[in-house]
Amino acid sequence: MRSAEMIDLWRGELCESRHAGHAVICDAHGVVEAWGRPAEVIYPRSSCKMIQALPLLESGAADAAGLTDRQLALACASHSGAALHVEAVDGWLTGLGLSEPDLRCGTHMPRDPAENRRLTCSDSAPCQLHNNCSGKHAGFLTLNRHLKGGPDYVEPDHPVQQAVKAAFEEVTGETSPGFGIDGCSAPNWACTVEGLARAMARFANPGPDRRGQAMRRLVDAMRSHPEMVAGEGRSCTGLMRAMGGAVAVKTGAEAVFVAILPEQGLGIALKITDGATRASEAAITALLIHLGVLDARDPTAQQLLDGPLANCRGRVTGALRRAPGFPT
Amino acid sequence: MRSAEMIDLWRGELCESRHAGHAVICDAHGVVEAWGRPAEVIYPRSSCKMIQALPLLESGAADAAGLTDRQLALACASHSGAALHVEAVDGWLTGLGLSEPDLRCGTHMPRDPAENRRLTCSDSAPCQLHNNCSGKHAGFLTLNRHLKGGPDYVEPDHPVQQAVKAAFEEVTGETSPGFGIDGCSAPNWACTVEGLARAMARFANPGPDRRGQAMRRLVDAMRSHPEMVAGEGRSCTGLMRAMGGAVAVKTGAEAVFVAILPEQGLGIALKITDGATRASEAAITALLIHLGVLDARDPTAQQLLDGPLANCRGRVTGALRRAPGFPT
Repeated sequence: MRSAEMIDLWRGELCESRHAGHAVICDAHGVVEAWGRPAEVIYPRSSCKMIQALPLLESGAADAAGLTDRQLALACASHSGAALHVEAVDGWLTGLGLSEPDLRCGTHMPRDPAENRRLTCSDSAPCQLHNNCSGKHAGFLTLNRHLKGGPDYVEPDHPVQQAVKAAFEEVTGETSPGFGIDGCSAPNWACTVEGLARAMARFANPGPDRRGQAMRRLVDAMRSHPEMVAGEGRSCTGLMRAMGGAVAVKTGAEAVFVAILPEQGLGIALKITDGATRASEAAITALLIHLGVLDARDPTAQQLLDGPLANCRGRVTGALRRAPGFPT
Repeated sequence: MRSAEMIDLWRGELCESRHAGHAVICDAHGVVEAWGRPAEVIYPRSSCKMIQALPLLESGAADAAGLTDRQLALACASHSGAALHVEAVDGWLTGLGLSEPDLRCGTHMPRDPAENRRLTCSDSAPCQLHNNCSGKHAGFLTLNRHLKGGPDYVEPDHPVQQAVKAAFEEVTGETSPGFGIDGCSAPNWACTVEGLARAMARFANPGPDRRGQAMRRLVDAMRSHPEMVAGEGRSCTGLMRAMGGAVAVKTGAEAVFVAILPEQGLGIALKITDGATRASEAAITALLIHLGVLDARDPTAQQLLDGPLANCRGRVTGALRRAPGFPT
C-alpha cells in the first residue's frame, strides 16, 4: 500500500502543499487502525528515546546512580537547550564524576530563544550540554559506567549500543535491518512503523516484570516532566500538558511521532514520508483528537492543526488541515 | 498523472524521506520535457517576481524613476535582509519621496546572519525594509506613483495588482483560477506548473516588443546581480554564480523553483508537493545539470544535491539524491 494523504496546507481556496505518510495504532494484541503502509521501514530517530533508555533502567544502572524521574525524562528528551536542561545535564554528569568532554553528541545551537540569544550575543559557541540529545547521552554514560565500557559509547559495537539494539529489537518484535548514524552520532536502528507502534503499545501495557517496571517508570517520568522532554513552545511539551499528563508523546527528526496512551492501552507511531515536522505534529494531533484524548479546541492543538496561519502583517493566509479521510 | 518522485534523503543504507513533485521544461513552442502532472495548479509564490515586475517596466514607471539594473534585480528578489539589501531599498524609497511606512509587506527577522545578529543583540525589531519582499514592494510603489493609485497597493483590486494579474495571465497563457495572500500580503495568482514554465520560456525567448524588452532587462538584471536576488549562502545566488550568469533562477516559498535559460531558449518550473525547500533546491539543481548548464562538481551544486550531509560531530550521515528516473 502507498502512503496515505494526511495533512494539507491550504492557502486561500487552494491546497498549496500536501503531506502523506504511514501511521499505526496498536493495542497489546496488535494493529487496531492503520493508514498508509504499516510495513514501511523507517528510522525512528529521537522518537524511540524511551526505548533507548530501557537498558539504563533494566541494568540497574539508573538506580545505582540514584537517577530521579526528572533525569529519566531528560534521558527520553529532545530538549531545547534551555538553561534548565543544560544545568540538569551538567549536574547529572558531575554526579557521575564526568564532565562535558565525556559526551559524544557534538554541538549545535540551542532552540531555546533565551539561551540561543545569550550565546549569540556573547560570541559563545554552544557546548555538548546544549545538544538536544545530551540527556540521552548522559543516560548512555550512566549505563556505560555500570557496564564498564570504553569511552566511545556511540560506536555501534559498543556494549551500550548493543544493549540498546537488543532492547529495541525485543520491544519492536523485529530484527532490525540496520542502522543509520543519528545527528548525535548514536546508531539509530531501523524498524517498521508497525514495529514502532507495537513497541509503544508495550509501553502502554507494561507487565509486572523488570521491563514492565522500566517502561512504566519512563512513561511516568515523561508525563510528569513535559518541560524536560522538549521545552517551552515545543509540540511534545505542549501536547502532554494539553492532555493533563495522561499521554506521553515524543517527536523524532524527519517527521516521526509516537504516543503512549496507558489509560487506553494504545501505542501510536507515524512517519510523514517527506520528513516535514509541521505535518507530523499536525498528524499526531489529529490522531490524539481522533482517539478522544486531546481536545480539538485546546490552544496547542489549534496551533498545530486547523488554527489560522498568519503572515508578516498578521493577515490570515491559510491553515494546516486534515486530508480527506484522515484520520477517520 | 500523479506527482513524480524527485529527491530522496538517504541515511545509511535506507531512504529515510522522499520528495515528489511536478516539473516542466518549455521552449518557445511548448513543453519539451515534463515530470509529474504539468496541469497541477500551484501558487508560484516568490518564483514569479520577475512576472510581477513586468508592469513596472512596461508602464514606463521604471524608466521615469531612473531605476538601475541593481534595483530591478531587487524587484525580483527574495533577499536576505542584509545591510546591502536594506540600504538599497531604503535609498530607492527615498528617491521616490517615500519611506518605510509606505511599504505594506510587514516585518520578519532577516535571514542574513550578521543583520539578524545585530538586531537580536541590540534588542531591535526588524523593519519592513528587512522583509525579503521589500524590493518587490519598492517596485510596486514605483509603479503605483506612476499609476497614481491609493496607498494600499497590495489589495487585489488595486490598479497595481490588477496590472500584475493581467501580465501574469498573459505570460502564463492561462486565466488564473484565483489568488492566495502571500507572506508579504500581496495577492499571489495561481497557475499550472506548465503555465509557469511557459512564462519562463517567454522570458528566455523575448521578442522585440515592449514586453520582450522588459523581459530581457529583468533577466539580465537578475543574472548580473545575483547577490541582490537572494544573498550570500543562498541557493539562487549560488546557482547563478555557478553558471557564470548564463541562467536566471528564482525560488518561491513552499518549494517552487524556476529557471530561465536564454542561450537554450528554455524555461523551467517545478513544485515539490510537500513544500520542502531542500527538495526544490535539489530538484532544480538536478534539472540544470541535466540540461548541461550546471557542473555537477560545482561546490554549490554539490551542497544542494549529492554532497555529504554531516551531523553535529561532522560525521557523514547521508545525502540528498535524485530519485530513480529523475530527471532522465
